[in-house]
Amino acid sequence: MTALENLVQNLARLPGIGPKSASRIAYHLIKTDAAYNKQLGLNIATIQEQVFPCSICGSFTEIDPCPICEDHSRDRSQLCIVEAPQDVITLQSSGAFNGLYHVLGGAISPLDGIGPENLSFAKMLKRISEGQFKEIIIATNPTEEGDTTALYIRHILKDRQDLTITRLASGLPIGGDLEYADRITLARSLRGRVQF
Amino acid sequence: MTALENLVQNLARLPGIGPKSASRIAYHLIKTDAAYNKQLGLNIATIQEQVFPCSICGSFTEIDPCPICEDHSRDRSQLCIVEAPQDVITLQSSGAFNGLYHVLGGAISPLDGIGPENLSFAKMLKRISEGQFKEIIIATNPTEEGDTTALYIRHILKDRQDLTITRLASGLPIGGDLEYADRITLARSLRGRVQF
Repeated sequence: MTALENLVQNLARLPGIGPKSASRIAYHLIKTDAAYNKQLGLNIATIQEQVFPCSICGSFTEIDPCPICEDHSRDRSQLCIVEAPQDVITLQSSGAFNGLYHVLGGAISPLDGIGPENLSFAKMLKRISEGQFKEIIIATNPTEEGDTTALYIRHILKDRQDLTITRLASGLPIGGDLEYADRITLARSLRGRVQF
Repeated sequence: MTALENLVQNLARLPGIGPKSASRIAYHLIKTDAAYNKQLGLNIATIQEQVFPCSICGSFTEIDPCPICEDHSRDRSQLCIVEAPQDVITLQSSGAFNGLYHVLGGAISPLDGIGPENLSFAKMLKRISEGQFKEIIIATNPTEEGDTTALYIRHILKDRQDLTITRLASGLPIGGDLEYADRITLARSLRGRVQF
């Protein structure tokens, strides 16, 4: 296999990159600035040494514990449970949450062979029992797997009557159009309608 | 800037990769096989040392001259003129051409400031005058720039009455549907209709 074929084949293993895009990117790399290639190559080769999961919350970090877990100006009474590390970045960029996070590492999905034992529930329970949390905000995805996971969390926390357990609201996306909303989203936003 | 932001920003400079895809790829790289990252990183960092344009025809190669220019079993009476090195790979994969290639390095496009002096026409004329070519096949893209370039090639070769100058046929793509063909393609395929 030639260097070009090798590059195309490795690029095509990235998510969302098919063989055509991989070829296009490879041709671009042959013609582009050599210094940029060296830098991108180094970025990719070393990213796992530089970015890893926080030992407390599981979100991506470059120092352990992560800056969010270490930030004592954050509200330590709220814990937001998410499926994946990138969800922390997305929620942080919304600027609407100032508590702590816990990353499960996925959602319960029996069809994919992912049960509660494959996710970091034990660690979550330990954090909740040792912390001063008053509210647990479940921010799993609004999918079947995310719903199952949310129900499971409510179930394993049912003895903690002192905790408020909430879940992110589902409904019409802002800037969306009723006409283009799918039936299930519309039904959920009707069921969850709020006083105005 | 953190290592993750740096990686995302560099990935987003690749063609066809926006900020969202770049993030998705970066998250994937953090979790995937470390050996694969090292290999892909090295591929990208070293591709320009390994793959470069052939000094004769301009197509991508790992040895100079390229295997196509050096292959004496190929038909040296046919020269196929293309815009970009990747066009050589595409034409080669069709298996329908067994002559030699010449890569112009683009197409004439006054709006983008690309005139004939920016393309390898001088080298092309030298090859044609020194070679034993009987047919020049113009395989520029069926676009305005490609058409202009094709007309220019015909113009600069007009004194070579001994050469047959041809151009790739334009028309309906095989497997396509009349209903979905655009007007210009349809008009071209009508004008260029062939005896059946």
